[in-house]
Amino acid sequence: MEYPTKLLEDAVVNLSRLPGIGRKSALRLALFLLRSDAGLSRDLSAALARMRAEMKYCARCSNMSDADLCRICASPARQQGLLCVVADFRDVMAIEQTRQFTGTYHVLGGLISPMDGVGPEQLKMDALEARVAEENIQEILIALSATTEGDTTAFYIARRLEPYRRTISSISRGIAVGGELEYADELTLGRSTQHRVPFGTQGY
Amino acid sequence: MEYPTKLLEDAVVNLSRLPGIGRKSALRLALFLLRSDAGLSRDLSAALARMRAEMKYCARCSNMSDADLCRICASPARQQGLLCVVADFRDVMAIEQTRQFTGTYHVLGGLISPMDGVGPEQLKMDALEARVAEENIQEILIALSATTEGDTTAFYIARRLEPYRRTISSISRGIAVGGELEYADELTLGRSTQHRVPFGTQGY
Repeated sequence: MEYPTKLLEDAVVNLSRLPGIGRKSALRLALFLLRSDAGLSRDLSAALARMRAEMKYCARCSNMSDADLCRICASPARQQGLLCVVADFRDVMAIEQTRQFTGTYHVLGGLISPMDGVGPEQLKMDALEARVAEENIQEILIALSATTEGDTTAFYIARRLEPYRRTISSISRGIAVGGELEYADELTLGRSTQHRVPFGTQGY
Repeated sequence: MEYPTKLLEDAVVNLSRLPGIGRKSALRLALFLLRSDAGLSRDLSAALARMRAEMKYCARCSNMSDADLCRICASPARQQGLLCVVADFRDVMAIEQTRQFTGTYHVLGGLISPMDGVGPEQLKMDALEARVAEENIQEILIALSATTEGDTTAFYIARRLEPYRRTISSISRGIAVGGELEYADELTLGRSTQHRVPFGTQGY
């Protein structure tokens, strides 16, 4: 594709570096910005530059934060004794969205994945252990994906925190609430019969 | 959705102003930028800001341009006597992509659309007439969409340029090259039998 100007080409090339945006979509977005009010380009450009340059991370839990301590760590309403370990910011946002969890978080920054060269050293594992050692934490809730990496990371955490003799729990797995048996995947359905729970204990 | 920080929220809100990007995609893009090298956000931000603020338009044809005259108008290799009238930059790019057209362009900046409040005054019609009056143009090729707005605009141009007694042509319409008759839409197929051309004159 030949672009009429270098300015347009630069915008398209940079936009198409974003995941899921090809050259055609990038061109469509660039032309939209050219047609729109100049304020839109200015605000978007400023917001993206500021976000990456000025984003802070909570000194305690590594979640994104506007201040030294994130809103959740700083809130007196949250149970400081219940710590939920997640891989990513998105997981914090997803759990917060449910408005069901009242504890605090620890964001690992990923999952152990030897194939991708990610070991415990690349994650916030030392910080997690230090928190369990120093803070008054009664329970660690492991909320990781039900994948090989998630399971590996969960086992690593459980073993590493064993000496501290805290309750270690995991988010429940099984058939989704509202899910129909015939559409459930085989593995989930099989395990749900093996890891069955006393009737009524899961509230549905 | 509650965002952990104002910086993230600003980025997501601005990204989701782009067409085809909802809140979820915008969040995905923002988190990608946060995970990626800082250079990516910096380059993207700068390219978008510069494009909108510094884009110039060709003094002759209104196409996007790096200089006063665009590359096409400035090229001695292009036929200055053959002028192709299009609605939009994208049309110029699409026609240039074919490498078949050797003339120059005139970008109207839209199509006449009374429903949307777009009349000839909102388009580069005066500039078009001035070019035909002043430049040595033999033929005006109208390359507009085969829609009501496109047809209205084409008729307007043809009537307005009539006094100058130049050849006025239109891009050919009919069954797409390689298109199968049974899949052609009814209107195109019907018109292609009415507006038939001597065998062999269209080269396929």
